[in-house]
Amino acid sequence: MKNTPAKQTAMRRLLKNRKEKLGKAPGAAVHVGTASTEPIASEIHVFDGETCEVVTPTDLAAIKPAPSEAKVNWIHVFGVHEPQAIKELGQRFELHPLVIEDILNTDQRPKVEDYPDAFFVVARIFARDPKNQELSSEQLSIVLKRSTVLSFQERHNLQFDPIRQRLQQGKGKIRQRGADYITHSLLDVVVDSYFEILDDFGTRMENIETQLFAEPEPGLLPTIYTLRQELILLRKGIWPLREVLGRLMREESELIDEHTPIFFRDVYDHAIHVIDVIESYRDVLAGMVEIYLSSAEYRQNQVVKVLTIVATVFMPLTFIVGLYGMNFKAMPELEWRYGYPAVWIVLCLTAAGMVLFFRRKKWI
Amino acid sequence: MKNTPAKQTAMRRLLKNRKEKLGKAPGAAVHVGTASTEPIASEIHVFDGETCEVVTPTDLAAIKPAPSEAKVNWIHVFGVHEPQAIKELGQRFELHPLVIEDILNTDQRPKVEDYPDAFFVVARIFARDPKNQELSSEQLSIVLKRSTVLSFQERHNLQFDPIRQRLQQGKGKIRQRGADYITHSLLDVVVDSYFEILDDFGTRMENIETQLFAEPEPGLLPTIYTLRQELILLRKGIWPLREVLGRLMREESELIDEHTPIFFRDVYDHAIHVIDVIESYRDVLAGMVEIYLSSAEYRQNQVVKVLTIVATVFMPLTFIVGLYGMNFKAMPELEWRYGYPAVWIVLCLTAAGMVLFFRRKKWI
Amino acid sequence: MKNTPAKQTAMRRLLKNRKEKLGKAPGAAVHVGTASTEPIASEIHVFDGETCEVVTPTDLAAIKPAPSEAKVNWIHVFGVHEPQAIKELGQRFELHPLVIEDILNTDQRPKVEDYPDAFFVVARIFARDPKNQELSSEQLSIVLKRSTVLSFQERHNLQFDPIRQRLQQGKGKIRQRGADYITHSLLDVVVDSYFEILDDFGTRMENIETQLFAEPEPGLLPTIYTLRQELILLRKGIWPLREVLGRLMREESELIDEHTPIFFRDVYDHAIHVIDVIESYRDVLAGMVEIYLSSAEYRQNQVVKVLTIVATVFMPLTFIVGLYGMNFKAMPELEWRYGYPAVWIVLCLTAAGMVLFFRRKKWI
Amino acid sequence: MKNTPAKQTAMRRLLKNRKEKLGKAPGAAVHVGTASTEPIASEIHVFDGETCEVVTPTDLAAIKPAPSEAKVNWIHVFGVHEPQAIKELGQRFELHPLVIEDILNTDQRPKVEDYPDAFFVVARIFARDPKNQELSSEQLSIVLKRSTVLSFQERHNLQFDPIRQRLQQGKGKIRQRGADYITHSLLDVVVDSYFEILDDFGTRMENIETQLFAEPEPGLLPTIYTLRQELILLRKGIWPLREVLGRLMREESELIDEHTPIFFRDVYDHAIHVIDVIESYRDVLAGMVEIYLSSAEYRQNQVVKVLTIVATVFMPLTFIVGLYGMNFKAMPELEWRYGYPAVWIVLCLTAAGMVLFFRRKKWI
Amino acid sequence: MKNTPAKQTAMRRLLKNRKEKLGKAPGAAVHVGTASTEPIASEIHVFDGETCEVVTPTDLAAIKPAPSEAKVNWIHVFGVHEPQAIKELGQRFELHPLVIEDILNTDQRPKVEDYPDAFFVVARIFARDPKNQELSSEQLSIVLKRSTVLSFQERHNLQFDPIRQRLQQGKGKIRQRGADYITHSLLDVVVDSYFEILDDFGTRMENIETQLFAEPEPGLLPTIYTLRQELILLRKGIWPLREVLGRLMREESELIDEHTPIFFRDVYDHAIHVIDVIESYRDVLAGMVEIYLSSAEYRQNQVVKVLTIVATVFMPLTFIVGLYGMNFKAMPELEWRYGYPAVWIVLCLTAAGMVLFFRRKKWI
Repeated sequence: MKNTPAKQTAMRRLLKNRKEKLGKAPGAAVHVGTASTEPIASEIHVFDGETCEVVTPTDLAAIKPAPSEAKVNWIHVFGVHEPQAIKELGQRFELHPLVIEDILNTDQRPKVEDYPDAFFVVARIFARDPKNQELSSEQLSIVLKRSTVLSFQERHNLQFDPIRQRLQQGKGKIRQRGADYITHSLLDVVVDSYFEILDDFGTRMENIETQLFAEPEPGLLPTIYTLRQELILLRKGIWPLREVLGRLMREESELIDEHTPIFFRDVYDHAIHVIDVIESYRDVLAGMVEIYLSSAEYRQNQVVKVLTIVATVFMPLTFIVGLYGMNFKAMPELEWRYGYPAVWIVLCLTAAGMVLFFRRKKWI
Repeated sequence: MKNTPAKQTAMRRLLKNRKEKLGKAPGAAVHVGTASTEPIASEIHVFDGETCEVVTPTDLAAIKPAPSEAKVNWIHVFGVHEPQAIKELGQRFELHPLVIEDILNTDQRPKVEDYPDAFFVVARIFARDPKNQELSSEQLSIVLKRSTVLSFQERHNLQFDPIRQRLQQGKGKIRQRGADYITHSLLDVVVDSYFEILDDFGTRMENIETQLFAEPEPGLLPTIYTLRQELILLRKGIWPLREVLGRLMREESELIDEHTPIFFRDVYDHAIHVIDVIESYRDVLAGMVEIYLSSAEYRQNQVVKVLTIVATVFMPLTFIVGLYGMNFKAMPELEWRYGYPAVWIVLCLTAAGMVLFFRRKKWI
Repeated sequence: MKNTPAKQTAMRRLLKNRKEKLGKAPGAAVHVGTASTEPIASEIHVFDGETCEVVTPTDLAAIKPAPSEAKVNWIHVFGVHEPQAIKELGQRFELHPLVIEDILNTDQRPKVEDYPDAFFVVARIFARDPKNQELSSEQLSIVLKRSTVLSFQERHNLQFDPIRQRLQQGKGKIRQRGADYITHSLLDVVVDSYFEILDDFGTRMENIETQLFAEPEPGLLPTIYTLRQELILLRKGIWPLREVLGRLMREESELIDEHTPIFFRDVYDHAIHVIDVIESYRDVLAGMVEIYLSSAEYRQNQVVKVLTIVATVFMPLTFIVGLYGMNFKAMPELEWRYGYPAVWIVLCLTAAGMVLFFRRKKWI
Repeated sequence: MKNTPAKQTAMRRLLKNRKEKLGKAPGAAVHVGTASTEPIASEIHVFDGETCEVVTPTDLAAIKPAPSEAKVNWIHVFGVHEPQAIKELGQRFELHPLVIEDILNTDQRPKVEDYPDAFFVVARIFARDPKNQELSSEQLSIVLKRSTVLSFQERHNLQFDPIRQRLQQGKGKIRQRGADYITHSLLDVVVDSYFEILDDFGTRMENIETQLFAEPEPGLLPTIYTLRQELILLRKGIWPLREVLGRLMREESELIDEHTPIFFRDVYDHAIHVIDVIESYRDVLAGMVEIYLSSAEYRQNQVVKVLTIVATVFMPLTFIVGLYGMNFKAMPELEWRYGYPAVWIVLCLTAAGMVLFFRRKKWI
Repeated sequence: MKNTPAKQTAMRRLLKNRKEKLGKAPGAAVHVGTASTEPIASEIHVFDGETCEVVTPTDLAAIKPAPSEAKVNWIHVFGVHEPQAIKELGQRFELHPLVIEDILNTDQRPKVEDYPDAFFVVARIFARDPKNQELSSEQLSIVLKRSTVLSFQERHNLQFDPIRQRLQQGKGKIRQRGADYITHSLLDVVVDSYFEILDDFGTRMENIETQLFAEPEPGLLPTIYTLRQELILLRKGIWPLREVLGRLMREESELIDEHTPIFFRDVYDHAIHVIDVIESYRDVLAGMVEIYLSSAEYRQNQVVKVLTIVATVFMPLTFIVGLYGMNFKAMPELEWRYGYPAVWIVLCLTAAGMVLFFRRKKWI
């Protein structure tokens, strides 16, 4: 019923299959996204200023809210393709049914929603498939509660390893800070990864540019087209994040410590930078298409010129030799002694005249 | 006088015929839309937390406001092409004349209007005609009053069956909630149906893309053109819904329970997602037109190349053989013993030189 | 000095001649617009809930403010090309000099202005000249005072007849309502007339579309160009009306009854609908230009293909027959008994090969 | 060092030379603009309700603030190319150094700035050079103080003569009003002059349109290009004025009388009208380029058709005559009595067939 | 690991390499930008109304906050490529870790951030490399604290020399004013330098325009393309500065003196002017591409015309001479006495007819 993880077209990546979802009540726990046979994994960090304990539960059913708020709990789940397990986990943490639904529907646009006792944040992680070089996106859902963060991503990727390391090794001040800072760190890693994606885009565009000016091939346009599709995909997934971060940086809630907004502002700046670069890239790609089309036109012009030169040189010559191929009885030239060399001279002069004409026109 | 349900062009679908409407006073009960001979049907659900009673009145004249507000009344009407019957129904429920007019004029853009004792919401339902594959839209008008919802759609379609089933089977919390939640459910189904429409769009665009890169035919452009027209139609009918849902989600009215805005926010998110996808599709289609035009140019270039190669190879050859077709008395070459083979050699060298020239130009 | 009512270009219709106006003080009573020899006519409706009296003054000089506010006075003037008469009329009704100036300068963009004791509203009426099918616009100026409405239009057209009939026949509640409702009715008729204009546009665009896919002629592009010019004209005259109606619907003034804003909201909705349709039409026309250009390119490609096929088939053949037209003494083939039929076989094979080549290329 | 008043390109007109200005402190009195050898002139009007005295000082050094505020002083200066004189004048009137700098830098965009005791307004006057028909702009700087207006323009042009006449002849209420009304009158004249410029634009565009449909020449495109450049120039200089007038019309300051905002609103309306027309013209010009390019394509298509028809008719004919030019011994047709006429029949049929083919294709 | 200062493509200049930065905690001191072997230099100005002392520390480690706030300290640092030294300097001045990070990451978009005791401003300085004429940008970071300004730029350039001179020579009022005025002066110099860059752009565009109308070469398009890329780069770096200056001009903080906002407003005006010019240039460049493409099309049309004329003249002639090259026994014309001259007359008439045809078509 669901999309198999085969090659997906850009159109498929712009809108996931929601067939199973249609007609269901809001809050219904149905998974929208790529099916997977990988089991759902999870990892819990429990830390305060001094210590950091890491737990790797074998089963989501083992995850329960912490009895006290003395320590910060960061529960990270890899995979959301088992609706029932996710739903029960959410219910244990008293998440709103719509939040659970949105965690499962991995096709959300980035957003932030406030619930009485929680913030719900959605962002998108982009990555290129190492095999087919396809750009795909994954949903990151974060629920920020008092001293607890639940985060969900679709696949078992390792983007957030630096956060894990900093927590476990006690680097920086991450342990001193609370659940809101973990939320910040997750979004910070996500936005940083956009720079990597864009850097790769830059490299691809440079290659195209080089080819464009060296030897524009017809295969170049589909390549540009694909990059544009991917920029549309990126833009759709990143643009709303700006608003999300803007709201988090201005939010006055007891769930967010007074020192954290300054960090959200930092990520916000980065997100705007990313969006600026995407917009600039769009402009650059549009310029490339123009160059490509124009150089195609130029090459056609060259072909037509060659045709014109050859035809214009040889048509008069062929006419002249045809003239003396006529079988009239009375053609005095044919009898002339130097008729034949004279024709050669006429032919050469005609050809030379044509060549001169093209020289003056700067065609050759 | 009215449009018959024959094949309609995109232009007709962008603006319905209002001839009969012109010059009438505002609030005049005139039907604007596709005429129909189907009788108007209706269905009433009367429910509270425990029970749900379904009534199917034979005639609109039988529908009257409920005497008490203890139970929620959801009155759904299929077809608005009998102005008098709709007008009388509206008057019994004390609807403002402008509301009745808007229910009958099925060409409204989505909107929400507040009246002293009611909300009036208009949305558009899109569907493809199963026969001619044409995208057409239908108006859904919802009047939300205290414990009563009146909803009107143009044709007897079954989009809202899931709501009926949930009410009748008591699934979920729909029975516990009030008239505002029924309004939400109707809009939720409408927005969900947009995803289905867009999914179908995506499939059509994929097919075009495949053809575009395989073998672009001239018939492809009209297909792209039609899809663009339909996207314009969709955009026109969906874009204002965003504002409608935004207002419903922020509205502070006693007609809307405090728990319902969170559900309107959910539909609002989906509507924005739909709009994002529509915008992305527009971009993608624009890119496709570019690819199409460029590949048309490429093919023309190929044709011109073939012409040039043939002309450039054979014109000099024809000149040479024409040369020795001249009838001059004194043409020493003609007398040479190996004149003829020598000409063959010259011809072959000339042709080979030309072929080499084209190889170097990478034309062949 | 003024524009004669001859054929006007789109540019002329975008900006009327203001030569006479330059350097005059603000409030100077100078007519900007099409000159006319038709005398200025007028019509006064004096009504209250029970009665409606119609007066047709022979001269503007006979029109004076009503002594009491018990009845509503609607004074409608056809033609503003006699600056002095209009100025004196305005002064009798104590209009601000800038209002009188704007009534005379029939080139205003739609606007609403509040003066201490009056609202001044400008809107534009569009109509196609029945003779040359040209779209032209006319200015409607409305001054709303307590229990008095003065309205001015440039020509003696009959758009507002339905209002007159409703007043005279006492249909609907128009007599019960005040001067603000007359203002609403005038604007309602204006906006309704836009739908008619757009309907006509739709028909023209349909015709173009049909031709476009059947047999695109070079004459089609100027037609599309003219429609685009006219859409620009419409857009310029309708877009600001949205703001005008938006302000009237939100205005809290003692000149506007508390029940009237709901009606202005209705017209506002229609105006937005009109603007939506205009924008959609622009998009559709842009798509048509693309289709036209592409089909022009396609046809050129067909012409080039025919040329290529003919040249590519006949050039080798001509070479071959030229070959055996050479006059060499020693050409053994010429002596062969079956030389001539053999050449025919070669010619046929060559031609067949070429045809096969084009078949494979799908050119024929 | 400065720009000589020679022919300037569009680029130069978009940004004046600021070399001398670089690295100077803000408020430095450096002239940015076209150098001039014309001496700076000035004219002072001192007026109240009854009288109006005109003074023409021989030297800027003679201009001093009026000792009392009983009368309104309007000091108009023609030319700002003597920084020192302007600076000293400004200092006598206690202008902020930044105001003096902006008066001298004649490259300002329109703006309004409030200082504790003054408003500083910048607007741009456009005019076509009568000789080379080039559109150039001039800066108008206005300082509005209590009962004093200082206005500066770059050249000795006579746009403001109507104001002078009205003041001197006591026409209208201009003498009764204060310094704020003089400011209004200056801006009113400026905005009115835009209509003249646009009227001239309209005439030029009409001419282009006529040519475009009659006989599009390659020289047309540079003309369109120049008009577009000039529209860009106009837009850049007029667009910000809208904001300036909007602020003046809303400003609550003791420098502006309560009756004046209504007049600023009038100019504001005109400015918006001008901007609307500029935007419409841009759209129209864009459409013209499209028509031009398409008609160029159409003409090329005609050329290719002629080539194709000639080649397609004559190539087979040439082949046939070449065929019977072969020198085979055994060619029975050559011996036939009616061989030659038979060939003529074949030639005619072939040609006729080709012509029929082109007829069917609607090429001829 | 870092970018070497070799030739950079536009893509590289739109986004610097951040590899080393990925996965680091926010506030990590990592340098993002061009590596350099030049040592970091610095210069300190300590001044009050009377005196100005200049110190050139040999090492950043020697720079410490001033013990009292009596004098203004302006510390300017050239080069930020030694993260550790910059970090320690920042820590001595109690800068927020995110500020230090942003100083080191020289890829920031312009922004202003308020911290409890400081403003942090980022702007970008653009310059053309004198060798390869490439436009590159450099980050200017300014920290404004009470009576102290720290400013950092990436390379040892001398843009700010005029400020140094004014401080050292006591010109103007710069010494009387405080740290906020130094901030203003730095930004003023930056914005002024944009005018220089745009002036150079204008010159380049003028050259292109001249060529475009004289003799458009294929090399012109890449030149236009490069300029467009550079405008995208400029726009990305300058656009956000508008907001920065807007905020500084409205900011009410004790760090900014009440007289300074008027100067920020001045710079703000200049920045908007710069942005206007950039937008106008974009429009102008877009128009140039159109002209270029159209002239390319025009030239192709000329080539095709030459081909058509030659082919159309010589094909019939070649046919005629081929006709009389046939070897039929019975061809009476061949026997005629004046057959040959008669053919010449036919040939001449045919050629003349063709030439007349082309004349009428205005091709020659």
